[in-house]
Amino acid sequence: MLSRIYHLGYAVEDIGAASRFYRENFGANPGEPEVVEEQGIVATMFRVGESSIELVQPTRPDSPVAKFLAKRGEGFHHVAFQVEDLQKALAELKRGGVELIDEEPRRGAGGTRMAFVHPKSAFGVLTELVELPEG
Amino acid sequence: MLSRIYHLGYAVEDIGAASRFYRENFGANPGEPEVVEEQGIVATMFRVGESSIELVQPTRPDSPVAKFLAKRGEGFHHVAFQVEDLQKALAELKRGGVELIDEEPRRGAGGTRMAFVHPKSAFGVLTELVELPEG
Repeated sequence: MLSRIYHLGYAVEDIGAASRFYRENFGANPGEPEVVEEQGIVATMFRVGESSIELVQPTRPDSPVAKFLAKRGEGFHHVAFQVEDLQKALAELKRGGVELIDEEPRRGAGGTRMAFVHPKSAFGVLTELVELPEG
Repeated sequence: MLSRIYHLGYAVEDIGAASRFYRENFGANPGEPEVVEEQGIVATMFRVGESSIELVQPTRPDSPVAKFLAKRGEGFHHVAFQVEDLQKALAELKRGGVELIDEEPRRGAGGTRMAFVHPKSAFGVLTELVELPEG
């Protein structure tokens, strides 16, 4: 069902410092940070093979990522796997009794459809499933 | 410098239950768990695209993974990136002032060479670099 690691999300306090760290030490090439107002974050990505690393900094203290940082500190926040058919994947997970944060696909960046599996159900790992737009 | 995500390590309390979860719900195919005595763990892997997910359970309470579980609970433990030349990568990181757990490559599974970057230096992410054997 999982075709690749689509991205790995890292929660950081300072997206500028984190971008510089990966640029200067690992030759990474993070893009211009983008604000996603409804999630209360600013994010940037860089490519590693067929996957990306997403650096995420909160823009307000009530955003989920701000709460994560307050509780756990900087570090891994979530993993996103690409799936072929998100609707079918969610139906199978529900049938298996897996707890979902999103029972139906939501709209993601760049025309993707995405949904989160609850970390309680997935051994503590906040797991996102992503379906790419056709073509 | 980073050519792909080689694996993602998840710390779990019960490797049997976690393997079953990924097998039954995601069609994953984790192998027979292997005990790594010197690290105090039992581990298994399954493939996702060009990467793998490694499930790691401690076998004794003084192992690093047991301490991680006691402090943080189940979840992401580390990420491993493949690099072409580990010795060169470590030299560059040292020059950049990045704190390393392993200043010199250590022997990893299957003839690999590996080293850990300190999570303090890498925005809270325990980061492993892996060089594959030639051929």
